[in-house]
Amino acid sequence: MKSTQVTETSKAPSRERLDHATRTAQIYQAAARVFCEQGFGQASMSEVAAASGMTKAGIYHHIGSKDELLYGIMSYGMDLFEEMVYDRVKNIPDPLERLRATIRAHVLLVTRDRPKELTVVLNETVALKGDYLQEINKRRRRYVRFLERTFQEMIDQGLARSIDPRVATFALAGMINWIYQWYQPSGRIKDSDLAEAYVDLFLGGVLAGP
Amino acid sequence: MKSTQVTETSKAPSRERLDHATRTAQIYQAAARVFCEQGFGQASMSEVAAASGMTKAGIYHHIGSKDELLYGIMSYGMDLFEEMVYDRVKNIPDPLERLRATIRAHVLLVTRDRPKELTVVLNETVALKGDYLQEINKRRRRYVRFLERTFQEMIDQGLARSIDPRVATFALAGMINWIYQWYQPSGRIKDSDLAEAYVDLFLGGVLAGP
Repeated sequence: MKSTQVTETSKAPSRERLDHATRTAQIYQAAARVFCEQGFGQASMSEVAAASGMTKAGIYHHIGSKDELLYGIMSYGMDLFEEMVYDRVKNIPDPLERLRATIRAHVLLVTRDRPKELTVVLNETVALKGDYLQEINKRRRRYVRFLERTFQEMIDQGLARSIDPRVATFALAGMINWIYQWYQPSGRIKDSDLAEAYVDLFLGGVLAGP
Repeated sequence: MKSTQVTETSKAPSRERLDHATRTAQIYQAAARVFCEQGFGQASMSEVAAASGMTKAGIYHHIGSKDELLYGIMSYGMDLFEEMVYDRVKNIPDPLERLRATIRAHVLLVTRDRPKELTVVLNETVALKGDYLQEINKRRRRYVRFLERTFQEMIDQGLARSIDPRVATFALAGMINWIYQWYQPSGRIKDSDLAEAYVDLFLGGVLAGP
C-alpha cells in the first residue's frame, strides 16, 4: 500500500499517484522488452532496471518481485485489451456488427496500439503461477465466453452457419494472436487493410461465390 | 561425425546407427518437455539428461551443446511437419484439393502426431541464433511460399475471391498454430472433426448463405 492511496478522497489523482502509474507503465513496457529478448527465466531485475533507466532499488520501490512484475505486465496488457476492444464492443446489440467491430478493434490493437513485446509476453503463460495465473485466465475466459455467445447468437438468428462456437472462437483468436509473428507495420499491408481483410476472410471464407 | 556413418555402404542401417537415431529422437522429445516447462533459458543440460533417463555425459555423446539441441528439436519438428504434411500435399494438382488436404494434415499433425511440447518449442524462435535460425527460417519460408502460390492459383482459376495470398497464408497458419493453446485431445471435439471444421470455416467463413 502506497501512502498516495490514502488521499483518494480528492477528485483529481495526486501528482505523486499519477507519477507512480506512469512510471509503472514505463517499467512494464521496458520489462516486456527485456523478457521478450532474453526469456523470462534468464532476465534479471538488474537488466529490467537498466532498460527502465532506473536503479534496482528504484524498481523495487514500484514492484515487489519478478513474478509480480510478470503478472503486472500481463494485467496491463489485459487492461489495454479491455479498454481498446472488449469494453467498446461488448454492448453492441447486433451480434454480426459486434463480431465485425471486435475483429477490427482486436487486429488494430495488436498491429497499432500494443507494442509487439507485450503481445509476446502475453502469450507466455508458462512462467505465470498460482493466483496470478488464475486471475489472468479468468479475464481471458470472459473474452472466450463473449465470443462463444456472439457466435451462438449469430447461429440462433440465422446469421451464421451451424459452426461450433468454440472452434470459431479459437480459430479467430489464433488468426489475430499470430499477427505479431509475421506482420510488419512498415510493410506493404496497412493495418486498417489487414483488419478489413480479416473481417472478410473470417466472415466470408476464401471461396469464390457460386 | 560418428563412426556409424562410415558403414553406410551396407543396405540396412546398422543397429548402432538406428539406436543413435532413436536415442536422439528420445532426447529431443524429453528436452522439448523440459524447455517447455522451464523455458529454454532456465533449463540446464543436467535436467535434460535426467528427463531423458541419461547421464549428462551420455547426452553430450549425442548432442554437442544446448544451442545445437534446440536446433535439433526444431529440425526434428520440421522433419515431422514435412513428412506428415508438406511432402504429402505439395504435388496435388488442383489447388483447392491441395489446400483442403494441407489444412487437414496440418491440423491432425498438431492435434494427433506431434507432442504439444514440440509445438511450443517450435514457436520459440527467440532463443535460436545465427545459422541455426536461418536454416529453420528457410524451411518455414518454403511452406509460406507454397501456401501463397496455392492461394494465387485458386484466385487465378476463379476458385477463390481476390484475397491477399499473404494475409490468407498467415491467417491460416495462425488458426492452426494456435491449436496447442486451447485444444484438449481428450475433450468434446474430436481431432478429425476439428480438421473438417477448420477446412469449412477457412474455406466458407462463418456467414450463413444468402
